[in-house]
Amino acid sequence: MRRLFSRPDGAGAVSRRGLFGLGAVSVAGAAVAAGGAARAEGTPDSAGQAALGFGNTAARADTGTVTFTGPHQAGIATAVQDRMHTAAFDLTTTDRAAVVQLLKDWTAAAARMTAGRSVGDGAIPIVSAAAPDDTGEAIGLPASRLTLTIGFGPGFFEKDGADVLGLRSQRPAALIELPKFAGDSLDPARCDGDVVVQACADDPQVAVHAIRNLVRLGFGTVAVRWSQLGFGKTSSTTPSEQTPRNLFGFKDGTRNIDGTDDPALAQHVWVSPDDGPPWLAGGTYLVARRIAMRIETWDRSPLSEQEMFIGRTKGEGAPLGGGPAEHDPVDVARLPEGSHVSLVHPDANGGVRMLRRGYSFVDGSDGLGRLDAGLFFVAFVRDARTQYVPMQSKIARNDLLSEYLVHTGSGLWAVPPGVAEGGYWGQSLLEA
Amino acid sequence: MRRLFSRPDGAGAVSRRGLFGLGAVSVAGAAVAAGGAARAEGTPDSAGQAALGFGNTAARADTGTVTFTGPHQAGIATAVQDRMHTAAFDLTTTDRAAVVQLLKDWTAAAARMTAGRSVGDGAIPIVSAAAPDDTGEAIGLPASRLTLTIGFGPGFFEKDGADVLGLRSQRPAALIELPKFAGDSLDPARCDGDVVVQACADDPQVAVHAIRNLVRLGFGTVAVRWSQLGFGKTSSTTPSEQTPRNLFGFKDGTRNIDGTDDPALAQHVWVSPDDGPPWLAGGTYLVARRIAMRIETWDRSPLSEQEMFIGRTKGEGAPLGGGPAEHDPVDVARLPEGSHVSLVHPDANGGVRMLRRGYSFVDGSDGLGRLDAGLFFVAFVRDARTQYVPMQSKIARNDLLSEYLVHTGSGLWAVPPGVAEGGYWGQSLLEA
Repeated sequence: MRRLFSRPDGAGAVSRRGLFGLGAVSVAGAAVAAGGAARAEGTPDSAGQAALGFGNTAARADTGTVTFTGPHQAGIATAVQDRMHTAAFDLTTTDRAAVVQLLKDWTAAAARMTAGRSVGDGAIPIVSAAAPDDTGEAIGLPASRLTLTIGFGPGFFEKDGADVLGLRSQRPAALIELPKFAGDSLDPARCDGDVVVQACADDPQVAVHAIRNLVRLGFGTVAVRWSQLGFGKTSSTTPSEQTPRNLFGFKDGTRNIDGTDDPALAQHVWVSPDDGPPWLAGGTYLVARRIAMRIETWDRSPLSEQEMFIGRTKGEGAPLGGGPAEHDPVDVARLPEGSHVSLVHPDANGGVRMLRRGYSFVDGSDGLGRLDAGLFFVAFVRDARTQYVPMQSKIARNDLLSEYLVHTGSGLWAVPPGVAEGGYWGQSLLEA
Repeated sequence: MRRLFSRPDGAGAVSRRGLFGLGAVSVAGAAVAAGGAARAEGTPDSAGQAALGFGNTAARADTGTVTFTGPHQAGIATAVQDRMHTAAFDLTTTDRAAVVQLLKDWTAAAARMTAGRSVGDGAIPIVSAAAPDDTGEAIGLPASRLTLTIGFGPGFFEKDGADVLGLRSQRPAALIELPKFAGDSLDPARCDGDVVVQACADDPQVAVHAIRNLVRLGFGTVAVRWSQLGFGKTSSTTPSEQTPRNLFGFKDGTRNIDGTDDPALAQHVWVSPDDGPPWLAGGTYLVARRIAMRIETWDRSPLSEQEMFIGRTKGEGAPLGGGPAEHDPVDVARLPEGSHVSLVHPDANGGVRMLRRGYSFVDGSDGLGRLDAGLFFVAFVRDARTQYVPMQSKIARNDLLSEYLVHTGSGLWAVPPGVAEGGYWGQSLLEA
């Protein structure tokens, strides 16, 4: 006898919440009770952050939930999670209605997954002749602060000169094709994409599961152009926590924008109604650069050179020519000429700042006896033309670090504002 | 004025322990006090395991240390960590003394890193004209249960017919070249390697840091042949913890060997003195297979088919034709013909078992609109000729799952016994 179709208990619906035995709020509460740093956060001004200890440095393996809805998308000002899986997609349809339906389906799935639930009504369908709504590998895992953040590339508005989805007139002027920078060695298969989705979580299985399920839902409408796993964050938006280190072994992003600093976010990150177009107000732009690092060469260079190239000490991260502590003020004039900090510091850029959310990667080996490792640079900016492009132009030409960096992937996307209750990703654009 | 060489505090030595502010033992104790699952473990019979709560299921983000020395290498019977970075190396020298020196240098570095310390006496050299001993990106991170496990491939004993290192006579008879299995689609750049090192840790940054520092130390003696990051474990050696799920969304390895089951380890994993050669007693063999999974096709197949192919239910993991619970006995005769469990169950293989330690991976996309994702299968066996080869031969021909699997990488290595205090990796072989 073969029992292929019957279920032992007769019940079909198995959700992540059900198996985990706790609702999202309870999970957050439990983690806090255990001394963790769970947050019920979403937008940086949500009351939950303060109440639940925003800024607690014991953030690793946090199991809490980040609210999906709000005026801005989560995953931008949100305290940076430990792991990332980002995927870019190309449209495989010219049917605008199909794209709208996908955005609605993705939104529903994203809302459930970020709450620690399975896609659909339950992971396991009662009718077993159907494919499961959810692929299942995150069953039993908590939400792990999963955020999903969507952006639209130039190809979403205009493809090979054609107004495919009728959105050409809505393309923001700031959604440019990034220029070629000195030293770029871009692989087209790692660049651009009509749509991008960034998944961040403290558990990589949760981030990978989320992207994989969006890929599944997108079948017939979008296809994966590239995907990138980031194993460790290199930036923090929480100044009180330990600053993460990049694969140069240095602390990175000491002066990153604080995710709770609303004035700084308004000035440097969120697109204002005056910036236009109207559908993008409350949104932002995502710049991604896959930067391979020549770590073998770096590892053989003297400490003094490494510190001179960065402009900070390696152990503490203190600014050269300044005080002994990481957060002591930087005097750009006293930094080594051509050092990274001397070029990217706001004082050397008319006050320009970017919210960075990069991750380290290691993608096997390069076929030449070395690890294929580096930084997946992610920045959120209000206008790449005045923030990212001038800075990268300067870095590519003058930065002493450039000798150790090869940019192999690139992209710029317009990131729509947050989703209202009952709304969907990109609604303000598709209904503009 | 440029301060390039001076240090703010005049002190040079910065170790991970120093910065973290706690010794390894203190870290483990703190984690236990906080309700974590830290262990001071090494070999499966170490007293520390029982004392510190071996088997606690709250293992995520564990910060404890695993003892490096012992009769067997750590990273085999050790409770499986969440993340993995494994690298294979080819020799770039024919100088046996250089190889011995590298093994001694690697051992010293491994002993320090697994204890949560930096390579060398300190991460930051006092003489800043020298390159740092440690690359630095794990400064401030706890040991995270890091284990490092080394193995020697056929090319370590004999290269293109030449007895390069004078070790040909020590090559174990069981260290075969794995046969080509039905359906294999192996990429030579992902196969074999004269030496392999598996790094497992609960924090991927710690695992990547460890491999990267071994790569750095190996410059001039070995070069990276391939490396593989595993983001999520798919096997557990701790029966009391939640069974992990693979990218098919199913629980995997429900009946895996328990890392504390000494009789089972002696029978199926550890090479006995009678097995020979003498230098390998207390060692084992590592089988690795990089298996790409056609997850897009799988995700569109009905639940009933998925469960029939596996032989277990998706939600609970209960054996088809058996009781309702995951750990209920399996009756092979009642399983669907060709189902995975029906083929790999010990009852269908004369009692043969393997200790599995596999991880899920996602390596970007495959260029055809899909994620490049799958299972990095790792098994430790006493003799691959009687354990892995017959089982994989059968699976490759008969397993219903094979339709969804493509083996793209492969290797077999002899794993020497553990390191004694003051000894080094492979000492019994190099001094045989």
